[in-house]
Amino acid sequence: MNEYMKEAIAEAQKGLEEGGLPIGAVLVYEGKIIGKGHNKRIQNGSVILHGEMDALENAGRKTSAIYKKCELYTTLSPCIMCTGAVLLYGIPKVIIGENKNFMGEEELLKNRGVKIEVLQDKQCIEMMKDFIEQNPSLWNEDIGV
Amino acid sequence: MNEYMKEAIAEAQKGLEEGGLPIGAVLVYEGKIIGKGHNKRIQNGSVILHGEMDALENAGRKTSAIYKKCELYTTLSPCIMCTGAVLLYGIPKVIIGENKNFMGEEELLKNRGVKIEVLQDKQCIEMMKDFIEQNPSLWNEDIGV
Repeated sequence: MNEYMKEAIAEAQKGLEEGGLPIGAVLVYEGKIIGKGHNKRIQNGSVILHGEMDALENAGRKTSAIYKKCELYTTLSPCIMCTGAVLLYGIPKVIIGENKNFMGEEELLKNRGVKIEVLQDKQCIEMMKDFIEQNPSLWNEDIGV
Repeated sequence: MNEYMKEAIAEAQKGLEEGGLPIGAVLVYEGKIIGKGHNKRIQNGSVILHGEMDALENAGRKTSAIYKKCELYTTLSPCIMCTGAVLLYGIPKVIIGENKNFMGEEELLKNRGVKIEVLQDKQCIEMMKDFIEQNPSLWNEDIGV
């Protein structure tokens, strides 16, 4: 499997071990991971640290020139907030583990010129499916339902 | 002037005093402020703590039922990331200090049913105009340019 998606899944699993939601992401610049992160809703009581946001935050302040050469790997289709962050910083490509359990704002990303690749990775699908089944109210809270 | 926008401006000024970008926001639930925040790019080295995001984060985890009765006051027209956060949580109304210095994603908000009110407040306009003139590169970094 894609090595970067493996790292995103490892982040998601770290989140699960911490008692949180199993969603992870990594930001890759010219083949090098410059930021990793996972959802921190439970761990930090955070409403903004989705996996993608945490990866961006952990990468730290970067110039526009850097972001424009980045790829964001995320285990789950990105919600509208994370989509907004991708668009704000002009990240040109997002690689998505799966969109079976949640279909994010892929159309908006595509409409604004972001390239999308959806892997429908079995491990991502199972991990999220299990979590949602066991924690429906936490999951709903995370997506504003 | 609107008392909540006054509080958002006070947040923006706090940011300026800390050496940061003067953009502030408050989240109001049934007439009561439940979260205040300001841009923390410089102070925290944060790429996700725009004023609106900081206000949401400081409000903490809320149920969907709460968000759906909230109003978000922000000194500046919200960028696509903050717009995404508003849409994720289903906040139905955003009151904007000004959009002369930066026109955010007001159309997207409106298209998805969020009510918008733009005050074109002179203090907000001046505060942002002065900052941008004096710190063009910081400002560009904040909006991904």
